[in-house]
Amino acid sequence: MSGWLDEVHWDAQGLVTAIAQDAVSQRVLMVAYMNRESLTLTAETGIAHYWSRSRQKLWKKGEESGHLQTVRELRLDCDGDVIVMQIEQAGGIACHTGRESCLYRRLEAGQWVVTDPVLKDPAHIYTPGAGG
Amino acid sequence: MSGWLDEVHWDAQGLVTAIAQDAVSQRVLMVAYMNRESLTLTAETGIAHYWSRSRQKLWKKGEESGHLQTVRELRLDCDGDVIVMQIEQAGGIACHTGRESCLYRRLEAGQWVVTDPVLKDPAHIYTPGAGG
Repeated sequence: MSGWLDEVHWDAQGLVTAIAQDAVSQRVLMVAYMNRESLTLTAETGIAHYWSRSRQKLWKKGEESGHLQTVRELRLDCDGDVIVMQIEQAGGIACHTGRESCLYRRLEAGQWVVTDPVLKDPAHIYTPGAGG
Repeated sequence: MSGWLDEVHWDAQGLVTAIAQDAVSQRVLMVAYMNRESLTLTAETGIAHYWSRSRQKLWKKGEESGHLQTVRELRLDCDGDVIVMQIEQAGGIACHTGRESCLYRRLEAGQWVVTDPVLKDPAHIYTPGAGG
């Protein structure tokens, strides 16, 4: 029953763009990438799994930080190359900088201005050497 | 005053992922790409401009359909490779299929199920040969 996976238009690297949106506030929390394995695991477990391009490995979001993402809904766009997830963000922190959202900078008068506070010092989020 | 453009991490093709989110409902309406020129025009004019990868040209969204996107806010993510825009969608239709959003399919029991109606027949949205 993997026909739904075949409807995804994987790019040349076998990836699809995945957007995590807070299921309640509807804020976009982060944007990352999934390969076939990570999308399969996301659907099967209800916990967001990505593909880390920088580390070139499967990335269960929150595995080190505890900031897991519980997935309430998965949507696919018309071109099949974008996934939008409705999620519940454990700890209320999606960004590796310790902020709620990775979209914490707003363009104001020709400058990117930080609008969001750091909720938790990243030094206290991660164990040494661990990723997001 | 283009320092803010230099903070964007353009990919190998000179593009950045751009997400258009309805400023009121917060629904994600579409996801596309921008190059430096289109992001500059978006910021300067307050109307969303993209880069069409399929047509390899600047794409003022709605130029043919009238479904312009008025931009209320631009945000940049922590990695600098994603833009999220708060927009007002003219005509209430962002998708080339004539639907409000490009995210009109939801995963249900192993199938992508269409959840959104076509609001306007695409044949009546576009002039012959025109794009989105």
